[in-house]
Amino acid sequence: MGRGTGRGTGRRRLVVVGGDAAGMSAASRARRLKGPDELEVVAFERGRFTSYSACGIPYWVGGDVADRDRLVARTPERHRERGIDVRLRTEVVGLDLERGRVRARDLESGAESWTGYDRLVLATGARPLRPPLPGVDAPGVHGVQTLDDGQALLDRLEGTPGRRAVVVGAGYIGVEMAEALLKRGYGVTVLNRGEEPMSTLDPDMGRLVRAAMEAMGIATVGGTEVTGVLTGSDGGVRAVVAGGVEYPADVVVLGVGVEPDTALARDAGLPLGAHGGLLTDPGMRVRGREEVWAGGDCVEVLDLVSGRERYVPLGTHANKHGQVIGVNVTGGRATFPGVVGTAVSKVCSLEIARTGLRERDAREAGLRYAAVTVESTSRAGYYPGAAPMTVKMIAERRTGRLLGTQIVGREGAAKRVDVAAVALTAGMTVEEVVALDLGYAPPFSPVWDPVQVAARKAVAALREAD
Amino acid sequence: MGRGTGRGTGRRRLVVVGGDAAGMSAASRARRLKGPDELEVVAFERGRFTSYSACGIPYWVGGDVADRDRLVARTPERHRERGIDVRLRTEVVGLDLERGRVRARDLESGAESWTGYDRLVLATGARPLRPPLPGVDAPGVHGVQTLDDGQALLDRLEGTPGRRAVVVGAGYIGVEMAEALLKRGYGVTVLNRGEEPMSTLDPDMGRLVRAAMEAMGIATVGGTEVTGVLTGSDGGVRAVVAGGVEYPADVVVLGVGVEPDTALARDAGLPLGAHGGLLTDPGMRVRGREEVWAGGDCVEVLDLVSGRERYVPLGTHANKHGQVIGVNVTGGRATFPGVVGTAVSKVCSLEIARTGLRERDAREAGLRYAAVTVESTSRAGYYPGAAPMTVKMIAERRTGRLLGTQIVGREGAAKRVDVAAVALTAGMTVEEVVALDLGYAPPFSPVWDPVQVAARKAVAALREAD
Repeated sequence: MGRGTGRGTGRRRLVVVGGDAAGMSAASRARRLKGPDELEVVAFERGRFTSYSACGIPYWVGGDVADRDRLVARTPERHRERGIDVRLRTEVVGLDLERGRVRARDLESGAESWTGYDRLVLATGARPLRPPLPGVDAPGVHGVQTLDDGQALLDRLEGTPGRRAVVVGAGYIGVEMAEALLKRGYGVTVLNRGEEPMSTLDPDMGRLVRAAMEAMGIATVGGTEVTGVLTGSDGGVRAVVAGGVEYPADVVVLGVGVEPDTALARDAGLPLGAHGGLLTDPGMRVRGREEVWAGGDCVEVLDLVSGRERYVPLGTHANKHGQVIGVNVTGGRATFPGVVGTAVSKVCSLEIARTGLRERDAREAGLRYAAVTVESTSRAGYYPGAAPMTVKMIAERRTGRLLGTQIVGREGAAKRVDVAAVALTAGMTVEEVVALDLGYAPPFSPVWDPVQVAARKAVAALREAD
Repeated sequence: MGRGTGRGTGRRRLVVVGGDAAGMSAASRARRLKGPDELEVVAFERGRFTSYSACGIPYWVGGDVADRDRLVARTPERHRERGIDVRLRTEVVGLDLERGRVRARDLESGAESWTGYDRLVLATGARPLRPPLPGVDAPGVHGVQTLDDGQALLDRLEGTPGRRAVVVGAGYIGVEMAEALLKRGYGVTVLNRGEEPMSTLDPDMGRLVRAAMEAMGIATVGGTEVTGVLTGSDGGVRAVVAGGVEYPADVVVLGVGVEPDTALARDAGLPLGAHGGLLTDPGMRVRGREEVWAGGDCVEVLDLVSGRERYVPLGTHANKHGQVIGVNVTGGRATFPGVVGTAVSKVCSLEIARTGLRERDAREAGLRYAAVTVESTSRAGYYPGAAPMTVKMIAERRTGRLLGTQIVGREGAAKRVDVAAVALTAGMTVEEVVALDLGYAPPFSPVWDPVQVAARKAVAALREAD
């Protein structure tokens, strides 16, 4: 019997909080596995969209994607047709775990009401970090977390004269937005706290990214701290101040990262990790709660390389979490074993990829390691279009185990990191990576794949140290 | 003391038979590991080139690669500078394992002499199958195994009027040569014994290749047997006869495969496998012989998926063999664990990839399996340039273990097979493949990588059967 719904029937109710990747994947999967006679599925979403690709926003803003609707994988209407009760513009403002119910507010009317559940899925996502700086809320200062954010930015770009953009932060969002703004004809300056862009890479690899960005005409200023936003007579942004320097700006994009949106969970006493994300078991069930699952950008995930919990907000994980949750809330068994920290990105023609541990991570984990860097090409050197790439590889000294891989290059560089990601998952040594049977033909790879060129050098480096 | 050289000094002699990838990699590696005072390295090569990319010949013939020299990774001169005694146009015609010596013939003078060895490396490569058909030796009928073959074909294409080409065989070489001839302006007909091209794929995937080839203007005739070559009044090829039909041809390319060139080894009583290749241990040492190693296209390799010996003549394996042999002949320890059967190829804009077992292989191995096929795209569906691809995946019913993957698509399709290749090597289940942390960003992949879309369907298919 439904404890939360308390209706004394065999029909149970699944309540999903958050209507994007993790939440709606869970809802859809559960819906497919259990019919409406057995399971009612209710999904609350405070925005106006469901199941959209936030990762696609930079390409929409940059004009590669023609319109917003293309980023929506499944509309609320289609979810409803499939038997999911989607409630838009409805924010869950309270959890009553004791009685198995959520308090939801209709953002249009302000009315609040309780909804009981038998199974609860928290997929509340992330919220962008917004540094508490003077002027940060001025018109023209934009985040790019939601479709509404993207629309607001586009409106600004199209409605306001000006050709100078400042991007704060040089992580994935920062570099992707730099490309987008460049494509829109803006002069772009990227301000970054770290010395080099892409702090998810080691600085020596980040330096390659910076050099490439500069060559593309994107100004990069590293090692600087933004202290404020200056506004003009119209109240809109005029400049960004960082390290005592004023950078003129007609538009500012904040790309300084996100944090788990877990206020609701925290208030309800659910377990949060060091990064503020919900803690779950491999079945995505919130630790210590039988009837609550969580996934997507509001949870922490196990890093299979370091064995620690990490916060890795990515749509691809959110989708996997949703699938796993959808199986488990309907009585099946599925697991999300963890991540190895794979990420790929591009800025114009430059491709950037990483997986596993950086040198810094390896040091912090107290591991003795060898790090090597090689230059190779995307195709056989003699084949037209062979593009250079730099591959860095980190391996543990004692065991020879692969610890991490970073790649910076042109076309054909980024997705090569997948080989290292699978090898990391399998716990392979760099010697085993050298022996892998990877696809070879001149249009696709040199006779030694660049990842294996790096692995060979890593093997040699480990031998030398013995 | 050198048994073969019998010179009573500490200096030993390594003799390498065959100067391409495996042989010269072994020679080079050994040279780097041992100085000339310790080791003499002699390499016999019957041709005029060393260390060249036979895989690059179709692209040279097609005009993508400007000249032959670009296919030579390292010339004989450079090998000699590094202290390897390369003897070109010198064919080893006999092995005396008892006394540790090889008999070599200078192909210019015809003179023969014995050379002693302490360590012997056999890297005699493959020889193209040349069906014993009437007319097969007529001018205008070409193999494409060596650089000399490639040059002869190019001379024919440039020196003889005519615009009709027939390619016999629709494996990798066949389809790559079809592209090359098309680029040269020839009308191309590919004749194939099997119903579909690319018999390394299952027929349903081969059908996609055939449809794409036809759409490119390459005529394909499957299920036909070539019975002869007709010549014109000048003695040159005029047509190919297959299945009772005459296919007019100004030039014919034979791409019906190769076989291990192991006559020398067989005559010496060395162990050969079912495919005619030399049998070695994982250190590439010929079974039963302490002082003889073999690698490259003249050996059989262990298939890690089926556990059987296979014949997989590919440059990438040859290079790995050579590296392993170079270590082992100098007293080190390295192994080549085996292959999973990965191969990638392209015909014009079509990319083709495979790894592991086909349905047929799984059946022959007596495995119960599920096979699924999915359509996906190379990038997020909304991102410009997203190209369709078809992924087929085969998984074992009892264990859920991945058995094989085949991909046919456009740009960005082929190298995705590497993920499956690594997963096969690690013995992963399709469920584990679904959970892999692969690189995701809209320019590089849908939120579920196509390989994982296939794996999800495979998981579902296995569940249904339970």
